[in-house]
Amino acid sequence: MARFLKNREASNGRAPGEIVFIGEKKVQEATLKMIDYDNENLLEQEIIDLNESIAFKDTPTVTWLNINGLHDTDLIKKIGDGFDLHALVLDDIVNTSQRPSMEEYDDYLFMVLKMMYYDEAAKQIKSEQLSIVLGKTFLITFQERPGDIFDPVRDRIRKQKGRIRKVGIDYLAYALLDIIVENYIMLIERFGEQIEDIENEILENPSQKILSKIQKYKQEMNYLRKTIRPVREFILQLSRLDSDLLQDHTLPFIKDLLDLSTQAVEGIDSYREMLSDHMDIYNTGINNRLNEIMKVLTIFSAIFIPLTFIAGIYGTNFENLPELHFRYSYFIFWGVLVSVAVFMLRFFKRKKWL
Amino acid sequence: MARFLKNREASNGRAPGEIVFIGEKKVQEATLKMIDYDNENLLEQEIIDLNESIAFKDTPTVTWLNINGLHDTDLIKKIGDGFDLHALVLDDIVNTSQRPSMEEYDDYLFMVLKMMYYDEAAKQIKSEQLSIVLGKTFLITFQERPGDIFDPVRDRIRKQKGRIRKVGIDYLAYALLDIIVENYIMLIERFGEQIEDIENEILENPSQKILSKIQKYKQEMNYLRKTIRPVREFILQLSRLDSDLLQDHTLPFIKDLLDLSTQAVEGIDSYREMLSDHMDIYNTGINNRLNEIMKVLTIFSAIFIPLTFIAGIYGTNFENLPELHFRYSYFIFWGVLVSVAVFMLRFFKRKKWL
Amino acid sequence: MARFLKNREASNGRAPGEIVFIGEKKVQEATLKMIDYDNENLLEQEIIDLNESIAFKDTPTVTWLNINGLHDTDLIKKIGDGFDLHALVLDDIVNTSQRPSMEEYDDYLFMVLKMMYYDEAAKQIKSEQLSIVLGKTFLITFQERPGDIFDPVRDRIRKQKGRIRKVGIDYLAYALLDIIVENYIMLIERFGEQIEDIENEILENPSQKILSKIQKYKQEMNYLRKTIRPVREFILQLSRLDSDLLQDHTLPFIKDLLDLSTQAVEGIDSYREMLSDHMDIYNTGINNRLNEIMKVLTIFSAIFIPLTFIAGIYGTNFENLPELHFRYSYFIFWGVLVSVAVFMLRFFKRKKWL
Amino acid sequence: MARFLKNREASNGRAPGEIVFIGEKKVQEATLKMIDYDNENLLEQEIIDLNESIAFKDTPTVTWLNINGLHDTDLIKKIGDGFDLHALVLDDIVNTSQRPSMEEYDDYLFMVLKMMYYDEAAKQIKSEQLSIVLGKTFLITFQERPGDIFDPVRDRIRKQKGRIRKVGIDYLAYALLDIIVENYIMLIERFGEQIEDIENEILENPSQKILSKIQKYKQEMNYLRKTIRPVREFILQLSRLDSDLLQDHTLPFIKDLLDLSTQAVEGIDSYREMLSDHMDIYNTGINNRLNEIMKVLTIFSAIFIPLTFIAGIYGTNFENLPELHFRYSYFIFWGVLVSVAVFMLRFFKRKKWL
Amino acid sequence: MARFLKNREASNGRAPGEIVFIGEKKVQEATLKMIDYDNENLLEQEIIDLNESIAFKDTPTVTWLNINGLHDTDLIKKIGDGFDLHALVLDDIVNTSQRPSMEEYDDYLFMVLKMMYYDEAAKQIKSEQLSIVLGKTFLITFQERPGDIFDPVRDRIRKQKGRIRKVGIDYLAYALLDIIVENYIMLIERFGEQIEDIENEILENPSQKILSKIQKYKQEMNYLRKTIRPVREFILQLSRLDSDLLQDHTLPFIKDLLDLSTQAVEGIDSYREMLSDHMDIYNTGINNRLNEIMKVLTIFSAIFIPLTFIAGIYGTNFENLPELHFRYSYFIFWGVLVSVAVFMLRFFKRKKWL
Repeated sequence: MARFLKNREASNGRAPGEIVFIGEKKVQEATLKMIDYDNENLLEQEIIDLNESIAFKDTPTVTWLNINGLHDTDLIKKIGDGFDLHALVLDDIVNTSQRPSMEEYDDYLFMVLKMMYYDEAAKQIKSEQLSIVLGKTFLITFQERPGDIFDPVRDRIRKQKGRIRKVGIDYLAYALLDIIVENYIMLIERFGEQIEDIENEILENPSQKILSKIQKYKQEMNYLRKTIRPVREFILQLSRLDSDLLQDHTLPFIKDLLDLSTQAVEGIDSYREMLSDHMDIYNTGINNRLNEIMKVLTIFSAIFIPLTFIAGIYGTNFENLPELHFRYSYFIFWGVLVSVAVFMLRFFKRKKWL
Repeated sequence: MARFLKNREASNGRAPGEIVFIGEKKVQEATLKMIDYDNENLLEQEIIDLNESIAFKDTPTVTWLNINGLHDTDLIKKIGDGFDLHALVLDDIVNTSQRPSMEEYDDYLFMVLKMMYYDEAAKQIKSEQLSIVLGKTFLITFQERPGDIFDPVRDRIRKQKGRIRKVGIDYLAYALLDIIVENYIMLIERFGEQIEDIENEILENPSQKILSKIQKYKQEMNYLRKTIRPVREFILQLSRLDSDLLQDHTLPFIKDLLDLSTQAVEGIDSYREMLSDHMDIYNTGINNRLNEIMKVLTIFSAIFIPLTFIAGIYGTNFENLPELHFRYSYFIFWGVLVSVAVFMLRFFKRKKWL
Repeated sequence: MARFLKNREASNGRAPGEIVFIGEKKVQEATLKMIDYDNENLLEQEIIDLNESIAFKDTPTVTWLNINGLHDTDLIKKIGDGFDLHALVLDDIVNTSQRPSMEEYDDYLFMVLKMMYYDEAAKQIKSEQLSIVLGKTFLITFQERPGDIFDPVRDRIRKQKGRIRKVGIDYLAYALLDIIVENYIMLIERFGEQIEDIENEILENPSQKILSKIQKYKQEMNYLRKTIRPVREFILQLSRLDSDLLQDHTLPFIKDLLDLSTQAVEGIDSYREMLSDHMDIYNTGINNRLNEIMKVLTIFSAIFIPLTFIAGIYGTNFENLPELHFRYSYFIFWGVLVSVAVFMLRFFKRKKWL
Repeated sequence: MARFLKNREASNGRAPGEIVFIGEKKVQEATLKMIDYDNENLLEQEIIDLNESIAFKDTPTVTWLNINGLHDTDLIKKIGDGFDLHALVLDDIVNTSQRPSMEEYDDYLFMVLKMMYYDEAAKQIKSEQLSIVLGKTFLITFQERPGDIFDPVRDRIRKQKGRIRKVGIDYLAYALLDIIVENYIMLIERFGEQIEDIENEILENPSQKILSKIQKYKQEMNYLRKTIRPVREFILQLSRLDSDLLQDHTLPFIKDLLDLSTQAVEGIDSYREMLSDHMDIYNTGINNRLNEIMKVLTIFSAIFIPLTFIAGIYGTNFENLPELHFRYSYFIFWGVLVSVAVFMLRFFKRKKWL
Repeated sequence: MARFLKNREASNGRAPGEIVFIGEKKVQEATLKMIDYDNENLLEQEIIDLNESIAFKDTPTVTWLNINGLHDTDLIKKIGDGFDLHALVLDDIVNTSQRPSMEEYDDYLFMVLKMMYYDEAAKQIKSEQLSIVLGKTFLITFQERPGDIFDPVRDRIRKQKGRIRKVGIDYLAYALLDIIVENYIMLIERFGEQIEDIENEILENPSQKILSKIQKYKQEMNYLRKTIRPVREFILQLSRLDSDLLQDHTLPFIKDLLDLSTQAVEGIDSYREMLSDHMDIYNTGINNRLNEIMKVLTIFSAIFIPLTFIAGIYGTNFENLPELHFRYSYFIFWGVLVSVAVFMLRFFKRKKWL
């Protein structure tokens, strides 16, 4: 399957706004968790009946609803109805081939982005889609499957660590985005170390295996870039957004996040360039090798071919071949052979091939 | 014939706005179909007398007129007169070498774009021109020949599926564009899979055939890019258009379409880059091969040339050649040959050529 | 002489605005033709006395004055005085190394651009400068030498074909520009066909001649691009111009022209890219060839060198060389030779070199 | 460790705005120095109790507080409280992997940038983070360890050299930035000289060592670029800033600084391009060498292989081989050998291989 | 010394705005010349006492003061005081490593740019810094050493040629800039001719010398580009400037100048691209050569190696070797040799290697 463009066959002929799940089903059953808090109170619970959580929708407390599993389109539709979400929003949530983007609706912001992780088994970076709906008093996150990436945020909420309990819901959204982007950077850095490390290997031993490695890193970097660049774009958009949903004191945090995502994109570009340089050195290394091989061949040939020729002459059976009959001919013959060899060696020495 | 720029000879010396068909005649006779609907009623019919459909022009219902076949310039002219279209619009409709673009006129929007499909016979992507005129109460589509690409939309109209019957004519235009762009993505994805697949083949066996394949894919991708990028441009334009012809609630759909077309363009660029990487690996593979060939040659030469030389020496006919007369000379001679060969093999082993 | 930057030596030390002809003199004597028309009347004549035509300057009819030949700077100056042209305009008209551009003056627009044609003798694209002065009631064109490129327009004027006689002078200017740009496209297309065609040739037989061809096409494409891109720029400028000289109903035509020139520029870029790909295939083809040559050499050497060595052994003159004296030695010897050869052939077969 | 993206593990799961030191601890203990001056008075002292310096915060004199060492987060927090700094500012100060940037807060500007120096031991460019907080009456600089880079500014303050004592605190900030950027340029220039110098070496002797050098320079240039480009960006931002903190008469100095940083960035780009050209010449040099090697091999082989063949013929033992028995056969044989050799040499001369 | 970034060591630690000469001292003593004129009167004199010329500062006549030699910083300071120039302006004037730029001050415009000339001795393009201060009634030019580049302007002033005496001081500034840019173009053109010329040489004989030439031209083009691009930028800025110092009727001239400088930049880019193509052909040429060399080697080897082998067989000393004893063996042997050779030649002919 093409990794760079997910299969959209299922969506063919579908009406836009009609909700059809596109992607791989990664959990058996979708699960819902809710955290509801303000500065003083904290309520955390597994949701079974959706109406429970819809009740919290308009309370002034911060309501964070997290859904794991997207294939249950009925559930998604109910949430959509409960929280007044546009059909297109629901459509984007269940279409896991969505390009990262942000859309401003009347009462909420809708963001789609990707969580990235390295799949040790497939030896590839994989991505999962995360959708965030940020309303005035509620925030809904949709993940493809349960993950512990947001646990540090939950922890901070539970332990009243930092400012998270004191400030608004937009700060919560920021905190989630921040974790995602920090994870991008850690992923890039992980590859970066490996990329910086293979340089010496390339110079010393430009093997086929290294070539495959370079290519693999290149593709992973391209994949990261394709996914992270639009994230940076929408954070930029976010930092310029004029909306009630974002409070003034959250702006510096968004700008900090923008810096972080810029750093991510620049990091990727640096490593892409480095890989491109690696490829160049690899090729040059191969050419250097060819030169060395040819030198060895040439030196051997150029020394022994004349010698063999001389030996050939005295192997002829001419009746009248005077040199054959002198007493010391054979030793003079050796003298000639050695002289020729020495001369050739000097010649190659002068040419700096030895 | 140049695929990237169609032949315009026919248009030479023609007055601008004069309607001359440029392209290949793809149907015997042009046919017209009309669908007229509102939320309650639906009328679908083949049109024989054009005036029938012009009568529907100003009714508040949605009137969608589809023309298959562009060579009948008289017909096009009549439609132009009937629906008050600018001469340039008619000119662009019959000139199938038109660059995708959108033009805003007083009472209607005019869009030209391309439908793309893979021609199995010619093993090339081919394109057909689609022109859309979007008025207040009518929408006219001009295709080069009958096709079933819009059938899903017709189906949704007939079955009142989704919102299509409830909302305005601009949504119909969007629905058509959406199908076109979805088709682009499917085409890109189809090539994408093949492109991702040939990578292993290149590393293992960099044959001439693969080179041709890479080149072919490159050109198809270039062709796609050339056609799809301007489409993305005009959708962007559309999303920023301030016109009565587009209602507010259609805007999110247009933005979604913009995202989709961005995804198409980015997908193409990813694959172009991948092909460029493929080309690099291919070249490196060839060089690796050359190295291997040269290694074999050098090893053979470097081992046997000295051996042959030694044999040559004892093939000389010097009268006084003492070694020839010792009893074990021949066996010592073999000993020397084997030693030299072993020494050379070790030498190459140390050089890691073996 | 440098084609990409014409010799400006003549202009050295000249005062700006001083009129010095820079270029090649392409006609013996400058000639003037005038066409004056409105919807009803048409007057066409060769001008001898310039004052004749200046008289038409302020009449409400469309006055189109065409000058062939630019070396007669006195004449140019007289025209400048007669039609109140800025010194810089006159300077640009006679300097045939001018970059295509448009300048807005108080009472007229001044445009410089190039007509391009393929010079069969020099096997190069050559260009001629065309300057257009568009006033309220007059239009003056300056060509380097008489040409028939505008004949279709004259024809349409004479035969009242299309809208040309009914609308204003800005439409005439558009019609001229349209012909120029259509000519660019035809020129590009002509090269394009050849460029698309050589691909197969490259794969089959990467000869030196093809290399020269690719290079030649590259330079022609660069030359076209250098000349056409600024034309596209000023048409864009024109389409955004807010001036009395352009009437509203001419705007769609200008936009159409803009599309056409964009198509020209994109076409050039496509072919440039294709040529760059051609160059890549060419180089890969050469490397493939080298591989094939080396394979042949290696196979021959690797088979015969050991054989020769074995023959050499039995050519030695050792007194005690037992194998020589067995009855069937010679035939066993042949057996060994054939076995070695067969073994080597198998070895190369396994390596897929055969 | 990846140089292009510093390790951020420590920050994982941390609340944004929570102050966690990320980086290498470069000093044992953080030290504080304060300079307080106006046109008449100057006070310079080592700070032990932070409150001493906070007292100077609102006095109209210029108060410059310099902190060396960032690992003491308690100290940083105290400074933050004393000078009313935003939590994110403190966070950025202690995170030494920060991207150079500028942020405008209500009462102060916050700038992060890097000081660069060549680490002779590691043979790499290293960077240290410098943070600057510019308030109305105070300026705080945070360095990773004590350095003498700002000594010239201190000197000018002490000696009342130039305008520094007469103008405001924004000029002081400018003076510090100016020294940083001048240092960038000197670093670039230092590498630039070496880069310009290796060109001849490459043409003469394209060794493996030079390849490593080119690669090393490339990476250092990339590193410089990555660090300096965002500095240029924020100086540009600074030059367009509309803030009370910058006085009008400082603007020309900022613009001068912008020019300087543009020069730095352009210089880097020039050298990057030059290195890329160097790489090209290197590769061409290698190919030229291969050609030379092959020429030698070919000449030797082509001359001696036919000669050896001829000698081989007269080494055969045919009973009836007439030439062997003529008296002068051997000498004629030599004549033939010499003729063949001469002919081959001429052949290669004509081919210009000799 | 690095040519792309001049040595700034002297400026290290210097206060900004402090005037320190950076560069090479190119004249013994600085000299001053003044021209003062209006439409009727003209005064031209060598200045000894600076106060003489300062007296002319506020007269309504055009006062053009030209200084040759920049090392005399005292003189520069006096001029600065006399004409009320900002410290940074003076600083930029004496720092000959300044990037071309324009700065608007309250009462004057300050421009720095480079005059370029080809130094025949060093075989390099060299540049000299030219600073222009354009006030309301005075214009000051600072050159590194006396030059005759402005003589044509002085001549036009003296001879009242063109409009120069009739219009204002801004026209004088334009005239000077015009000469500079015309000189750029002539320099580019001069290199351009040589660059266009070497193409044939490359195809015919890709020698090491040509490689050096290409590299040299590349660097010169890069150097030109680095210097001329910022000049184009500030002319663009100038053309958009809204200042009393520029009169309306000078604007068309500035725009013409902008066109000229665009032409210069585009010319450089064209030649850079051409050089890059040259490099490609050069490399392909080398590869073609290698192919030819290998072909010769392979043909020789493949023909003679089997022949030598056959000769070797009949050189063996087997007692029982029947073929040796037939009467016509030797002649049959020759027949076999010739057949093999003919067969090989045909083989290579079929492969199109001959």
